Amino acid sequence: MLNMNHKLENIKEKMRTVVEQNDTLRGRVFDYCIQCLIVISIIAFSIDTVRGISETIRFIIGIVDKICVIAFSLEYITRVFIAKKRLKYIFSFYGIIDLLAILPFYLNLFIDLRILRIFRILRLFAAFKLIRYSRAMHRFSIAYSLVKEEFILFFMVSCMLIFISASGIYFFEHEAQPEVFGSVFQSLWWSAITLTTVGYGDTYPITIAGKVFTFFVLMFGVGMITVPAGILASALSRAHIIEKEQYKSKSADEKDI
Amino acid sequence: MLNMNHKLENIKEKMRTVVEQNDTLRGRVFDYCIQCLIVISIIAFSIDTVRGISETIRFIIGIVDKICVIAFSLEYITRVFIAKKRLKYIFSFYGIIDLLAILPFYLNLFIDLRILRIFRILRLFAAFKLIRYSRAMHRFSIAYSLVKEEFILFFMVSCMLIFISASGIYFFEHEAQPEVFGSVFQSLWWSAITLTTVGYGDTYPITIAGKVFTFFVLMFGVGMITVPAGILASALSRAHIIEKEQYKSKSADEKDI
Amino acid sequence: MLNMNHKLENIKEKMRTVVEQNDTLRGRVFDYCIQCLIVISIIAFSIDTVRGISETIRFIIGIVDKICVIAFSLEYITRVFIAKKRLKYIFSFYGIIDLLAILPFYLNLFIDLRILRIFRILRLFAAFKLIRYSRAMHRFSIAYSLVKEEFILFFMVSCMLIFISASGIYFFEHEAQPEVFGSVFQSLWWSAITLTTVGYGDTYPITIAGKVFTFFVLMFGVGMITVPAGILASALSRAHIIEKEQYKSKSADEKDI
Amino acid sequence: MLNMNHKLENIKEKMRTVVEQNDTLRGRVFDYCIQCLIVISIIAFSIDTVRGISETIRFIIGIVDKICVIAFSLEYITRVFIAKKRLKYIFSFYGIIDLLAILPFYLNLFIDLRILRIFRILRLFAAFKLIRYSRAMHRFSIAYSLVKEEFILFFMVSCMLIFISASGIYFFEHEAQPEVFGSVFQSLWWSAITLTTVGYGDTYPITIAGKVFTFFVLMFGVGMITVPAGILASALSRAHIIEKEQYKSKSADEKDI
Repeated sequence: MLNMNHKLENIKEKMRTVVEQNDTLRGRVFDYCIQCLIVISIIAFSIDTVRGISETIRFIIGIVDKICVIAFSLEYITRVFIAKKRLKYIFSFYGIIDLLAILPFYLNLFIDLRILRIFRILRLFAAFKLIRYSRAMHRFSIAYSLVKEEFILFFMVSCMLIFISASGIYFFEHEAQPEVFGSVFQSLWWSAITLTTVGYGDTYPITIAGKVFTFFVLMFGVGMITVPAGILASALSRAHIIEKEQYKSKSADEKDI
Repeated sequence: MLNMNHKLENIKEKMRTVVEQNDTLRGRVFDYCIQCLIVISIIAFSIDTVRGISETIRFIIGIVDKICVIAFSLEYITRVFIAKKRLKYIFSFYGIIDLLAILPFYLNLFIDLRILRIFRILRLFAAFKLIRYSRAMHRFSIAYSLVKEEFILFFMVSCMLIFISASGIYFFEHEAQPEVFGSVFQSLWWSAITLTTVGYGDTYPITIAGKVFTFFVLMFGVGMITVPAGILASALSRAHIIEKEQYKSKSADEKDI
Repeated sequence: MLNMNHKLENIKEKMRTVVEQNDTLRGRVFDYCIQCLIVISIIAFSIDTVRGISETIRFIIGIVDKICVIAFSLEYITRVFIAKKRLKYIFSFYGIIDLLAILPFYLNLFIDLRILRIFRILRLFAAFKLIRYSRAMHRFSIAYSLVKEEFILFFMVSCMLIFISASGIYFFEHEAQPEVFGSVFQSLWWSAITLTTVGYGDTYPITIAGKVFTFFVLMFGVGMITVPAGILASALSRAHIIEKEQYKSKSADEKDI
Repeated sequence: MLNMNHKLENIKEKMRTVVEQNDTLRGRVFDYCIQCLIVISIIAFSIDTVRGISETIRFIIGIVDKICVIAFSLEYITRVFIAKKRLKYIFSFYGIIDLLAILPFYLNLFIDLRILRIFRILRLFAAFKLIRYSRAMHRFSIAYSLVKEEFILFFMVSCMLIFISASGIYFFEHEAQPEVFGSVFQSLWWSAITLTTVGYGDTYPITIAGKVFTFFVLMFGVGMITVPAGILASALSRAHIIEKEQYKSKSADEKDI
């Protein structure tokens, strides 16, 4: 019995080197396979939304989709099986995404949840594992932690600017264009589209007062959208210095030993 | 009499710890309550602008609004009462905003000033007190003071660019499109919408000369809108260094004592 | 005779303190007056372009315009009179602008050159003299000299990108939309409007191939428009360090004396 | 025979100083001539696309085009002839571009490949040789190598954001606007145009759910497009420092000798 347990543990350990690690050849091959399946299932999902495709293609897509789901289900079961702390994995971020990626298929037998399949792209993110770009991620996370306060402050001020713009344009335009600027909520749409400089052209002021107001909002707002770039640039420069120092002190520590 | 004065001063002091400070539990609770009320009153204001809502909802909104105004009025009176320098508070930036947030309601009995209620969002800014993000604010203010001259110069050059563009497009287009580019003022609208890259599509050149002119204005103008990001990034990097030095010299001063 | 010459030189010197310098009270007052006149004449020019204004307003504008031109003419004559090197001033950048600002008025008696009046805004730039912001200008000029090569390279690559995009979209769209993408020149308009993210909506691809092409052009082009900000931010940081060192070495030189 | 070989080698060497180098007067003149021919042939190509031009102009363009192709053919043959490693040049980046620039003309006798002529603009890039701006190129390449990982990470995250946005808007809008958001592929077009803030206005959400979704996508996406600027700014600053150190160590090496 103990022996069998030991054997099982051995098998689990071997599977871990394939499924969880990716510094071994097998692990890398496994990762590439999963990534390919994810990309294939996303393409299948996209093609499936095209109207007027022939029944043959739809049939092939159905089969491809079923194969993908089976593969992902097997992967999910394996990951739960080999996880050292099963509950921790199941309720982890990637664990939930892994589940969400296969759940729609099984629930689909009862109700239509086809859209949930887009969660598979989140799996793509998980699959890449970001090991290869871990240093870049590390720098970004240092940079973010350095300027978290600036970003929150910027976000708050942006929200206020958007709301104040929406209130202002509602005041100036809601009589001239009751359909478009009918309420502050509708004006918020204009606000967001204008201050992000998207400017679809479906809503814009037509009164002189509204145009003058927009003029001044833009003078202020354009500076606004360039603020994150400035914050990030400054933070990344400092993050690089911090990373260098961490690396130096690590090297120094290793020398001491 | 002196005793009573002393007692009153004691009460005032206690109230100050609640209303003006937010490093105590009570102060924080008070702040959160005011912030919630502000958000509620802003939502109520927004819903109120929607046309075709039922009388019941409008009635509820009216009541919510009245409760908010009463609460803000009480807060304002309290703040005036406990302020060490009353006039200073009344004519301070936040004091005026606090007043503007309640004034429309009382004036409304006579004239319609409903739009002034949007000043409540400015109160939101006041309410957050920015204590939590004071270091970020500090860095921004250092950065701004470092590049104030650059920003003013940039603003002046931007204004000139907008005016020159407007004059130019007026010259090239006012004959082809007399409705849209009827005067330099109307062309200014095009100028602002184009140089900020919003581009609604309500006004654009149609003559070849106008298009060629726009082409060159854009080649120049696009660099323009990225200038603030560059200025800010450079300033924030320096602001961080200055802040660090300030912190160091402060620590050094404390050690000396 | 010599005495008279000396006297004249004395008067010239006094006038110079008023007209050319602005660290004296008189010089500053003179500068403000000229700046006010420039702003007034620009507003008059703008109002003049509005159609349907009454004859009375047009008459007033005419008078204001005449007063401005007379003032600018007097200023120009004075500047030529007191200049130490007359020809140098006349053919200097500001000298030409000063002339261009009054010339249209006198030529107008013969031919219609009303649009040349917009050169007055360039005078605004001259009038500000930028003394107040000379340090900011200095930093910008250091920054520009540091990254001149990068900007030229960026400009060249941008031009190529715009031309290649135009050629590509012409190839994909000129059959589907012969009116809009009729030639590479017309496609250049689309290129410029799209890559600067203005997006008026007057020209856009409608074929699938054209949309896919635009998709990839945008993926590349959006990074493009953020490049100048990055270049400038990096240059301004270095410009500040250089400026500091210049200031230090200047102080050191002064100490040595 | 040996003598003749030697003579030929001599001639080749002389030609190399003209064709391949540009620090000599002859080399620079040769480069300018090629650049002029490239610009002329590009202008000819552009004019050729204009519909309704007279036969005379089209005839002149045809001749200009033939002259250019002959000149480029001679240049290509010369470059192959004098190249030390012929195959290396033929299959090098510039070698292929040089060939692509003349090939369409000869193939055109059989099939219509007129569009391939746009490859001539790539030759412009080759012709400039970038010697003059080599230091700027060097800085850019250092900067890119420093932040390659960040750019790849950013590109991956951008692609995911675009796909998720497209899937989301397809879900919210495909029933209200089956023509515009008919499939995820069509939604990708909207995604790209919106997140790059181009906003043509040909496709935009009209349902409330779609607008709210777009609102949140934009709040996130606008920060997105400023990320490359931040990465580049930070990288260029470091690239400059690295370049300086390289220059210093080079000077030090030279001193040692």
